[in-house]
Amino acid sequence: MSQGFITVAPTGAEVSKSDCPPLPVTIDELVAAATDCQAAGASIIHVHIRDDDATSTLDLQRLKDTVSALRESCDLVIQLSTGGAVTDAEPDRLAVLEAEPDMASCTMGSVNFGDDVFFNRWGFVRRLHQAMQDHGVVPEYEIFDLGHLSNLARLLEKDGLPHGGHVHVDFVLGVPGGASGDPATVADMTDAVNRYLPEGTTFSATGIGRTTMPVMLSSVAAGGHLRVGLEDTTSYRRGERAESNAQLVRRAADVLRIAGREVATPADTRRLLSIA
Amino acid sequence: MSQGFITVAPTGAEVSKSDCPPLPVTIDELVAAATDCQAAGASIIHVHIRDDDATSTLDLQRLKDTVSALRESCDLVIQLSTGGAVTDAEPDRLAVLEAEPDMASCTMGSVNFGDDVFFNRWGFVRRLHQAMQDHGVVPEYEIFDLGHLSNLARLLEKDGLPHGGHVHVDFVLGVPGGASGDPATVADMTDAVNRYLPEGTTFSATGIGRTTMPVMLSSVAAGGHLRVGLEDTTSYRRGERAESNAQLVRRAADVLRIAGREVATPADTRRLLSIA
Repeated sequence: MSQGFITVAPTGAEVSKSDCPPLPVTIDELVAAATDCQAAGASIIHVHIRDDDATSTLDLQRLKDTVSALRESCDLVIQLSTGGAVTDAEPDRLAVLEAEPDMASCTMGSVNFGDDVFFNRWGFVRRLHQAMQDHGVVPEYEIFDLGHLSNLARLLEKDGLPHGGHVHVDFVLGVPGGASGDPATVADMTDAVNRYLPEGTTFSATGIGRTTMPVMLSSVAAGGHLRVGLEDTTSYRRGERAESNAQLVRRAADVLRIAGREVATPADTRRLLSIA
Repeated sequence: MSQGFITVAPTGAEVSKSDCPPLPVTIDELVAAATDCQAAGASIIHVHIRDDDATSTLDLQRLKDTVSALRESCDLVIQLSTGGAVTDAEPDRLAVLEAEPDMASCTMGSVNFGDDVFFNRWGFVRRLHQAMQDHGVVPEYEIFDLGHLSNLARLLEKDGLPHGGHVHVDFVLGVPGGASGDPATVADMTDAVNRYLPEGTTFSATGIGRTTMPVMLSSVAAGGHLRVGLEDTTSYRRGERAESNAQLVRRAADVLRIAGREVATPADTRRLLSIA
C-alpha cells in the first residue's frame, strides 16, 4: 500500500491569534500542537514563529529554541519556513538555516501574495539553495505557480540535486496572486512535475482557504502527499471554524486511508524524502 | 475562414542595439519597421521606446511623439508597453496612458524576469486597469504564468470589463522565471482561459528565444493569435540571426495561412478586439 504523509503548517505568518484563538503562537502552544498532530497522523511540521506579541519573526535564537523544544517533545520532521512574512529581508531568511532544521522551504520564484509581493529573486533562490546544500538541510521546494517548476528544473540543472538527492515539491494553491486551487490546476502541476523534474520527484499540496478540499482530494487522487493546518485555512468547513490543527490533520489522514493509502509515520517520511 | 492577427514587438527593453543591429531604437527606425511589418501582415505594434543612447525609457514626450509618428505612417493598432523596463516606477508606468495609444499592456502579476523581478503588485494592477478604463485604452492582459489568468478573473469580477468590453490576453512564455514555452504549457493556458475567463476571450502567444516556434505552432493549433518580434527573439532559427522584424512577421503570416487562417488586417483586428 503506498504511503502518504501529512505536513502540518500550524501557524504561518498571516493569521492573527485574535482571529483564530487555537493558533499556536508560543513555543509551548507549538509543542502541544506538534504532539497532538503527530498523534493524529502528521509527520512533518512546517514552522513559522511569532514573537512575544504574536507577530511573525525570524529571530534566530527563538528559532533555535523552537527547534530544540520540538526535537525534545516529538518525532516530527522539522521544516522551518525561510519565507517568514513576505517582507522579511534576505539575510534573515538565509540565517534561518543556522537553527539546524531537518528541512526548510525554498520558494521557487516571485509571486503576488494578496496585496503584497512575495519576492524571491533568482540570485537569492540560488544562494538559499546552496546554503541548504552546505548545511545539510533538505529543501521543500515551494511552488505557487507553474513557472516555479520550470525555475526548479533550471536550478537543479545549474546547481545540482539537494542534500539527500531526493526532490520534493509542495504546491501552495489558491493564494490570491498564484495559481488557483482547483482540480485542473493540480493536474497541470502534476503533469509539469513529470515533464520537467527528475523521475521519483514527490509532491504534496495544500489549498488555501476554501480551496482546501478540492486540492486535498485532487492531490490524493494523483498519488500526492498533503499539507494542512491553520496557516492555510482557519475553517473546518463552510461556516465552521477549525478547532485545532490536529482536527485538520485527522481529516487528511481519513482521506488518505479512505483512498487506500497508509498514513506515513515520521520515520517513513524520513525514508521517503531521504532525510538522515 | 477564421482570422488570426499578428502583433509585432519590434524593440523591447532588454535587447541592445549593439547585440542586434536591426533593432529599431529611433523613431525613424520604428516607423520604418512599422510600415514594413504592416506590409508583411502585422496589425498591432507593441511599442517600447529608447532614448538617444538607445536605453529603455518611459519619457512621456517621446512616447507622444512616437504615437504621432506611427499614426501618420501606418494603420497598425498602437499598443504601448506599460511595463517599460522591469525597474520603472509605477507613476511613470501609469503616465504612459497619457500618450493616448489604442491599447496598452496590463501585466497581471509579479514574476521573476531573469535576474530581476517584474513587480506588479495587485494595487498597482487595479489602478492601471482603472486608468485604462478612464482613458478609453483597450488593455492587452499580459500573462507570464497560470496564476496571472486567475488574477485577471478576479480583476474583471471586482472592477468590470475593459473599455470596449472584449477581453484579450497575451501569453508571454519561456521567460526565465515564468511558465515555459512548450506545447503543454500553451494547452494549460488555453484551458485556463476557458475555465476562468468570459466566453469569447481571445488570446495571442509568444515564446521567448528558442521557444518561439513551439509556442507559435501550438498557439495557432489552438486557434490563437500571434506575437513575434525582435523583443522576443533575435534569432530566425538556430544559429541564424533575424534580419528584421518584418522577416519574423512574414513567417508568422505564413504559419497562419498554412493553417487555413486568414491574416487579419489592422481594420479586422480593431473589430476583433472592439477597438474604436
